[in-house]
Amino acid sequence: MLLLIPGPVVTRPEVRAALAHDFAPWDNDFRPLYAGLRERLLRLAGGVPGTHATLPLQGCGHFGVEAAVRSFVPLGGKILVPMTGAYADRIVRLAREAGRVVVPLPMPFGGPVDPEAVAATLASDPAIGHVGLVYSETGSGVIHDPRAVGAAVRGAGRRLLLDAVSAFGALPLDLAAQPEIDAVVFTPNKCLEAIAGLAVVLARVDRLVAGQAGSWSFDLADIHAHALRNGWGSFRFTPPAQVLNALSVALDLLEAEGGQPARLARYTANMRTLYDGVCGLGLTPYLPAKAQGPVVMNVRAPADPAWDLQAFVDALKSRGVLISNFYNTPEPSFRVGAIGAVTPDDMARAVVAMGAALDEIGVRRRASALAA
Amino acid sequence: MLLLIPGPVVTRPEVRAALAHDFAPWDNDFRPLYAGLRERLLRLAGGVPGTHATLPLQGCGHFGVEAAVRSFVPLGGKILVPMTGAYADRIVRLAREAGRVVVPLPMPFGGPVDPEAVAATLASDPAIGHVGLVYSETGSGVIHDPRAVGAAVRGAGRRLLLDAVSAFGALPLDLAAQPEIDAVVFTPNKCLEAIAGLAVVLARVDRLVAGQAGSWSFDLADIHAHALRNGWGSFRFTPPAQVLNALSVALDLLEAEGGQPARLARYTANMRTLYDGVCGLGLTPYLPAKAQGPVVMNVRAPADPAWDLQAFVDALKSRGVLISNFYNTPEPSFRVGAIGAVTPDDMARAVVAMGAALDEIGVRRRASALAA
Repeated sequence: MLLLIPGPVVTRPEVRAALAHDFAPWDNDFRPLYAGLRERLLRLAGGVPGTHATLPLQGCGHFGVEAAVRSFVPLGGKILVPMTGAYADRIVRLAREAGRVVVPLPMPFGGPVDPEAVAATLASDPAIGHVGLVYSETGSGVIHDPRAVGAAVRGAGRRLLLDAVSAFGALPLDLAAQPEIDAVVFTPNKCLEAIAGLAVVLARVDRLVAGQAGSWSFDLADIHAHALRNGWGSFRFTPPAQVLNALSVALDLLEAEGGQPARLARYTANMRTLYDGVCGLGLTPYLPAKAQGPVVMNVRAPADPAWDLQAFVDALKSRGVLISNFYNTPEPSFRVGAIGAVTPDDMARAVVAMGAALDEIGVRRRASALAA
Repeated sequence: MLLLIPGPVVTRPEVRAALAHDFAPWDNDFRPLYAGLRERLLRLAGGVPGTHATLPLQGCGHFGVEAAVRSFVPLGGKILVPMTGAYADRIVRLAREAGRVVVPLPMPFGGPVDPEAVAATLASDPAIGHVGLVYSETGSGVIHDPRAVGAAVRGAGRRLLLDAVSAFGALPLDLAAQPEIDAVVFTPNKCLEAIAGLAVVLARVDRLVAGQAGSWSFDLADIHAHALRNGWGSFRFTPPAQVLNALSVALDLLEAEGGQPARLARYTANMRTLYDGVCGLGLTPYLPAKAQGPVVMNVRAPADPAWDLQAFVDALKSRGVLISNFYNTPEPSFRVGAIGAVTPDDMARAVVAMGAALDEIGVRRRASALAA
């Protein structure tokens, strides 16, 4: 079964096999694995040991984002969030419920965040301390540019929190060149092609303030202090040890593939096959080709009255391709991921399956009503 | 390797094998597994469908405790915590950092919580709305009595939050008979003999107040609303799907064993073998036999100057037995768990290994200095 959800993704058998063991996570034998993970993840992001720390958190990506917001934005502090789509909406809700003040930056759907609009808003409101940016917005499929936005943030003397959940491992990062970044948040089960159960925050150590989070569980400063106290960086509270072991194997595979540039090249080729194939089927992409990122493609719902998302998902599934049975775009769509342990050949198979599934459910008018 | 940490525990091969798959957690095929899990866990606790809900949370036990405190105790509200040991200390910190007011109830180390002391404190302070109780306090090894404490709480018209992390699955619960319980928190990787990566809260539905948590991630009311909105109870945010699948297999094994009473009987037999064996080696138990619960035994550090916890742990490990390299008791000790997929024969092997490990590191005077 091809999971093109996108994320959790298809993993390689070696990654899944790494789960099937018992581990004692505080044992000396586990320490090198865990220490190695932290060092390798930091290196992947161009982080500087001592300046940045790899702070893992049990759970999921949203927990990592809430931890980053709570730990770096003080209670009542202001954070500017460019409204890129569904995942920006989630930053907004996580921050507001944590008692932080969100300044939403409206923007047109489907384009990149405009660094000048960020700069102008920051200039107009000196109380805004942070900007929260989604690197890869799966709600639209657009990749935003943390370097360009970061330059605006740096220029204004403010700080950047980067949600890199569906970006990390495939899209480039260079923390050493972006001192304005307080935190980068990601999970193992997207472009790293590992397993869910964990969030990771790469954080600037000198910006951590103990107790600011207003939540012991989500206090990144305490997680960092815990690691220091134990010398070798032990995981605070019971870790998902199997997930860490699988992530270690997944990083081996990433390195063997040629690292982040090679992974991005494969995903880009996956997406090209998918995008061209979808167009070839007569379907309507949500985004023009030049705005389409390599992670997820949103496709507008066909105009045919026979269109039914769940029926399409079921018909695709019977052909070995699994996509989400929901959508995150403003208007009806279906979404297909191009990430995970999949290749352009897999994407070509998925396109063939889509055509057959549309025929099976009786969709003849494949273009969106909006495409006419 | 026998993991007697205690928790993560030794699991059965069928449980570990259930991890090694890719899952699409929102797929229709995953729904019956997840719905079945929620129903079976509620039944294990004697919960009433409609009155109680099984609310899963990504992460670890501490996250479940923080979510329960935030969701049921309002900001600035008071919670009474009997100071049973290290895990009561953690409830205190989780609650305080979340802005709740903790009233600690001091008590002697090593005995059960006195329901009359709870009743007296509740009578003296009408502002206390909740009591937070640790069912199985691994910091001491004592099992506290949620029925006796619950009766005092109920009599005072207050509410009970129960940390059942190292109890659930082995120690009895009857939520239907304890209407004063707002929440029971547990994890899969203790007496359920499954894998870490998740907390579960069994919660009284009519007591959930939307938004009270002050954290979207930890808002149990929102987790419940999310489940209702999706009809079939979908997991909010990306779940650790492999961990859920392993838990399902672990519940099959629990049922095949004869359910909670059979598991408690096995752990009780494990502990009897361990306790008698430890005494037979000349070591000093932290607790008298009548106070010792079936989950974890704390053993006082031997008086011999050759005693060194890490050296002992290493010597034991070379004999196939892994225990914690830290202790949670007020005075130096080592701790050995009696839970997990282990039997009295395993515990007998562990005792033999302990004797040999003590010899290897040169500990002759095995009794505690305090035992004389």
